[in-house]
Amino acid sequence: MSPSTIQDALRATNQIFEEEVVRKRNFQALERVYTNDARILPPGAPMVSGREAIIEFWRSMIEGLGVEDGALESVDLIVSDVITEIGRASLNLIDGSRVEAKYVVTWKREDGSWKWHVDIWNMNA
Amino acid sequence: MSPSTIQDALRATNQIFEEEVVRKRNFQALERVYTNDARILPPGAPMVSGREAIIEFWRSMIEGLGVEDGALESVDLIVSDVITEIGRASLNLIDGSRVEAKYVVTWKREDGSWKWHVDIWNMNA
Repeated sequence: MSPSTIQDALRATNQIFEEEVVRKRNFQALERVYTNDARILPPGAPMVSGREAIIEFWRSMIEGLGVEDGALESVDLIVSDVITEIGRASLNLIDGSRVEAKYVVTWKREDGSWKWHVDIWNMNA
Repeated sequence: MSPSTIQDALRATNQIFEEEVVRKRNFQALERVYTNDARILPPGAPMVSGREAIIEFWRSMIEGLGVEDGALESVDLIVSDVITEIGRASLNLIDGSRVEAKYVVTWKREDGSWKWHVDIWNMNA
């Protein structure tokens, strides 16, 4: 697929989320947005696995918050050979407390080494 | 590369972060962790672009929080054909307020359509 064809395909899926899911609250349309074994990593909550659980998450979130409409905007796409890592991180602080986070890292090879290319994280609680 | 070779390569990079960056506070070692044009999306702050800015971010974060040690644990790796999308989301609520988030979605083809396979987000503030 050419880059513009891929962009169009991705935009079409994002529009299902904007129009069907958020605006019309047709949560079954999430079957066309998420893969069957998708995972979401929301801030302030543990990871949610599988499309059925994800549908319940968004139903509860969108109805609970009272979301009226929403917009998704692509900032960048990385279509070359990458690896996605889902992980957990824990940091111990000098004051004795501990920070727990979950993350998604997109890995890319640079100069023969695999490195972190996109790195996003949030907390479970 | 075989899956176990890839896993070993990724673990080696993650160990640089754990041992060199967090434990020894050798922030220049981040040159072996992040690609030159990497981006990080921290919770509660805007996206940070480029390795030099990322090094300053971690120096300030690790020294500021007083991080003593840290551990990264891979939960899953997705090595097949995927696309990474960096994006911005905004949601308008019925009460008139607005939620702004940034996200990373790993896209995967399922039944001929591109869908969200891993979806993580956090807030800018």
